[in-house]
Amino acid sequence: MDYLEKLKNSNRSKGNYLCVGVDPDPEKIPSRFEKSATGIHAFCKELINVTHDITPAYKFNLAFFEIWGSKGWSILESLINQIPDDIFIIGDAKRGDIGNSSKFYAQALLKNLDFDAVTINPYLGSESITPFIQQAEKGVFVLCVTSNPSGRELQDHGEPMLYIKTAQICQKLNQKNNVGLVMGATKPEQLLEVRKNFPEMPFLIPGVGSQGGAVDAAVQVCNAIEAGVINVSRGISYAQGDFPDNIRKSAEKYTELFKK
Amino acid sequence: MDYLEKLKNSNRSKGNYLCVGVDPDPEKIPSRFEKSATGIHAFCKELINVTHDITPAYKFNLAFFEIWGSKGWSILESLINQIPDDIFIIGDAKRGDIGNSSKFYAQALLKNLDFDAVTINPYLGSESITPFIQQAEKGVFVLCVTSNPSGRELQDHGEPMLYIKTAQICQKLNQKNNVGLVMGATKPEQLLEVRKNFPEMPFLIPGVGSQGGAVDAAVQVCNAIEAGVINVSRGISYAQGDFPDNIRKSAEKYTELFKK
Repeated sequence: MDYLEKLKNSNRSKGNYLCVGVDPDPEKIPSRFEKSATGIHAFCKELINVTHDITPAYKFNLAFFEIWGSKGWSILESLINQIPDDIFIIGDAKRGDIGNSSKFYAQALLKNLDFDAVTINPYLGSESITPFIQQAEKGVFVLCVTSNPSGRELQDHGEPMLYIKTAQICQKLNQKNNVGLVMGATKPEQLLEVRKNFPEMPFLIPGVGSQGGAVDAAVQVCNAIEAGVINVSRGISYAQGDFPDNIRKSAEKYTELFKK
Repeated sequence: MDYLEKLKNSNRSKGNYLCVGVDPDPEKIPSRFEKSATGIHAFCKELINVTHDITPAYKFNLAFFEIWGSKGWSILESLINQIPDDIFIIGDAKRGDIGNSSKFYAQALLKNLDFDAVTINPYLGSESITPFIQQAEKGVFVLCVTSNPSGRELQDHGEPMLYIKTAQICQKLNQKNNVGLVMGATKPEQLLEVRKNFPEMPFLIPGVGSQGGAVDAAVQVCNAIEAGVINVSRGISYAQGDFPDNIRKSAEKYTELFKK
């Protein structure tokens, strides 16, 4: 089954576009968990336990695991194994290197860790993306428009703006239906514009939860191709209320908001 | 001692600008080493053993360690500990994320792994760089002009070209003398142009060895500020001849070529 098909199936079977972001911050997890590798492991296990029956996707931000060194990597391996096979799993690694090095990253993330897709930074061009899209079953979401304010400094540079150039490169690379774009929800007009001009690539949409992006536009651009993921990290993991009910309730709220 | 001072001292004491790239490829290391985590660990130990008295800097490309999962991370920790304190150590991680996540990467790489500097991808803007330059003793080399052919796709976009915009952002951020640029040697005219317009930031220069970049321009832009690193990875690790003499001889050749 190819990347896009797996994502579509997962969206269809759960009936929504939620992606639960797994970004365990030791300063923010409930006090019942130790501020340690063991503590964040236990927290993430519970986060997955109480959401896996309603979410079509998870996204792991590797920064939050790398701070634990080799232990962090083992935790990542163990958590990925815990997730049912039909759920789409994204490694939010934002990698990108010259071709020879990107090959090693692709093996580390898509083969060894067995992510379905990873996020890629396009600054080094097509060559840095190609090693990640050799097999139709695995793919990428390439950073196009990011949800942070300083993302505009380079992404809006030039005519056409750089993010359009990024999307054009990605469209050209999308021969096996396994290239998607990271499209922040903080600017709904950009979301709709890129969907209109690039009608085939799925979007990974951050910035809807604690960053306050537009829900309607996000759902609309996913519905247009019946595939996509709208990520919420802090808005679920650190939602108001008693753990783990707070997580379940918040995740349920987002599955409603992001209904297919 | 701040980042730039440490780099200058290291260049001065060794009398050259060489940076030995540590990118252990199991398919290319001598057959006496196993194609395994243990094998690449032993190879890298020997690579450092026979070069540490003549090189001012090492650069570890994280892709080549991530393929070994948690073991790879442990090897990285162990190799960094093996290197004498006065040598400048770069983590070639090409990270970059929204501010909150970049903080975690900064802790993982500059504090926990104790690199002196890491390479950063600027696509997400200043916010992704700031967490790495909070302390004057630690810093970054931001990807500006990369040495791979497809690097031109985005980096030459717009007017002025995007890489100039990147250098401008970096100059503005360089309040603590701890921001440098990755400037590929494949286009000597760009090297000289960026040095002229940005006379303060040190360069990390890849692309001189197996990629065939211009040696003279590389040395010239380092001499202009008496600091910098010219990286050679494959040209040293997999040089012709019997191991480990091949490595020693090739490293000696480059210290001559990159003489201060």
